[in-house]
Amino acid sequence: MAMKKFINDPANLTKELLEGLVSCYKGKVKLVSDRIVMRATPKDESKVAIVTLGGSGHEPALSGYVGEGMLDASVVGDVFAAPGAPKLLEALRLLKRDAGIVLVTLNHDGDRMSASKALRDAEKEGIKVREIVTHDDIGPGVDADPDERRGLGGCVPLYKVIGAAAEAGKSLDEIMDIGERFNRHVATLAVAMTGCTHPQNGEPITVLPDDEMEIGMGQHGEAGGGRTKILTADETAARMIAPLMQASGVKAGDTALLIINGVGATTLMEMLIVYRKAAQILADKGINVTPGACGEYLTVQEMAGFQMILCKLDADHREYLSAPARTPYWNA
Amino acid sequence: MAMKKFINDPANLTKELLEGLVSCYKGKVKLVSDRIVMRATPKDESKVAIVTLGGSGHEPALSGYVGEGMLDASVVGDVFAAPGAPKLLEALRLLKRDAGIVLVTLNHDGDRMSASKALRDAEKEGIKVREIVTHDDIGPGVDADPDERRGLGGCVPLYKVIGAAAEAGKSLDEIMDIGERFNRHVATLAVAMTGCTHPQNGEPITVLPDDEMEIGMGQHGEAGGGRTKILTADETAARMIAPLMQASGVKAGDTALLIINGVGATTLMEMLIVYRKAAQILADKGINVTPGACGEYLTVQEMAGFQMILCKLDADHREYLSAPARTPYWNA
Repeated sequence: MAMKKFINDPANLTKELLEGLVSCYKGKVKLVSDRIVMRATPKDESKVAIVTLGGSGHEPALSGYVGEGMLDASVVGDVFAAPGAPKLLEALRLLKRDAGIVLVTLNHDGDRMSASKALRDAEKEGIKVREIVTHDDIGPGVDADPDERRGLGGCVPLYKVIGAAAEAGKSLDEIMDIGERFNRHVATLAVAMTGCTHPQNGEPITVLPDDEMEIGMGQHGEAGGGRTKILTADETAARMIAPLMQASGVKAGDTALLIINGVGATTLMEMLIVYRKAAQILADKGINVTPGACGEYLTVQEMAGFQMILCKLDADHREYLSAPARTPYWNA
Repeated sequence: MAMKKFINDPANLTKELLEGLVSCYKGKVKLVSDRIVMRATPKDESKVAIVTLGGSGHEPALSGYVGEGMLDASVVGDVFAAPGAPKLLEALRLLKRDAGIVLVTLNHDGDRMSASKALRDAEKEGIKVREIVTHDDIGPGVDADPDERRGLGGCVPLYKVIGAAAEAGKSLDEIMDIGERFNRHVATLAVAMTGCTHPQNGEPITVLPDDEMEIGMGQHGEAGGGRTKILTADETAARMIAPLMQASGVKAGDTALLIINGVGATTLMEMLIVYRKAAQILADKGINVTPGACGEYLTVQEMAGFQMILCKLDADHREYLSAPARTPYWNA
């Protein structure tokens, strides 16, 4: 059976999608050295640069958030694969500045290895760079060791927060502080209804029975242990928001960010219905939900499902979330 | 087999998704009288109002484009169903003003009937309203009678153009002129890889063999006559852009808008790869492609496929496409 995807030679997939991105949004982003997406107009060197890395196949993440008010560069691997240390080091060299660089690494083995090696090499070259490792997935449990928690879609609002802080001229130390405070309070839980197809080899990634869904699945189909018969939207929202509230530490009187991140085939119609119930539950607990967002921010091919992202916000986070941004896939 | 969708009682689907929308984007939109989505903060009455109507199930269209710089109101029917004349008339009464109202109707039987009846009744009440009927689908052929051509995703950039013109204080006559000029030059062609499921009755909408795709399918699964074995992304782009260029009348030296509108399960990765080739073909013909966009603007549940939208732009259209907009799903 032919794969039901609009692609050409699978070997050229990442190259071609990046060419498409910079062609479509040429006023905002450009491609440098094959696999590095950078702003069309660089940010002033007096300001801290923000860079991230990760595999393709999750569009619009991660490169769709390069631009004013968010990322300075995204270093791209092949589908679901880390880009490797040499390519990341190349990006760090391009962004080298006295103000310093913040590298955001999602907690996945390949990305962590690429980052560790590149950071060691960069330090030897006198490049000032600090790292934030995201691990927002509470699939392994609310109390799981952060090292066992993967980085999911919570990286996207983190880019927004620290990108705006950098744009506002905050120092490297201040940005690390603001970012780590966000990182400690952001929690994500994923649910899948169907698997998906690896676009390069046509292989299915996870198979779910016709009448089951799985809460806690990772964004490459990693098992989450939460298989259940299909629940209603309201039941799903209630079951997911409870552990997220616990993990984020949000309580009555707090302000929280709530995002429903569709991972592929789940419609915005469904995301809005799930959002409605999750927001109602938060409001009933006296939590002020703002801002909210429903859409596809970090996807897993054509998988049906979504990630629910909740973060307890402080005054800095509220300010930087509402600051201007001008990127291909986040504008404010 | 249970439907693999996150919903509650199918009878409440439209009500719940609209409640989710206005909850998530409460600073931008509000729900009036059950099925009318309006701006949270109304536009000044000295300016022309823009309203549209259509069934739900196509999110973010149509209500996702209510807000500053685009629509004043969206009148919503049930899934894939027209809202009926009384609800539209109610919206027209709410928006009644000396400056007048422009109603955008997509060419589908139910919507046309709702609109015709409401327009007659509104006229009797002294409400000043003019109608633009969109029929951008060239599936029936480049030379088909406009009445036989359905309204597809080309309505979205039309909302942007006339919404910005209204915001700029243009008169009803001027906006009709600008809008009809856009309407004459915008052409859309759809391609489907898979069918989808009606979310209220669980019935499949069209079935496509495992190794086939269909060019020309309408946005409720209406047959397009262009069944073919699965083509590569580049072959698909080439086959679609040729008739679109002919229909839009774009030629060397012109500026054109190119949008790849994903209808559901097709990934942004694929849309960017298709965009890349279509934009290359246009550039090779000496056509200046700007702006471009890839994303899900008007969807058909979880169908895999996309609509390619091309419009030859004049100076007014370029200005109004790049003007500010602040809506749930279009921000500039």
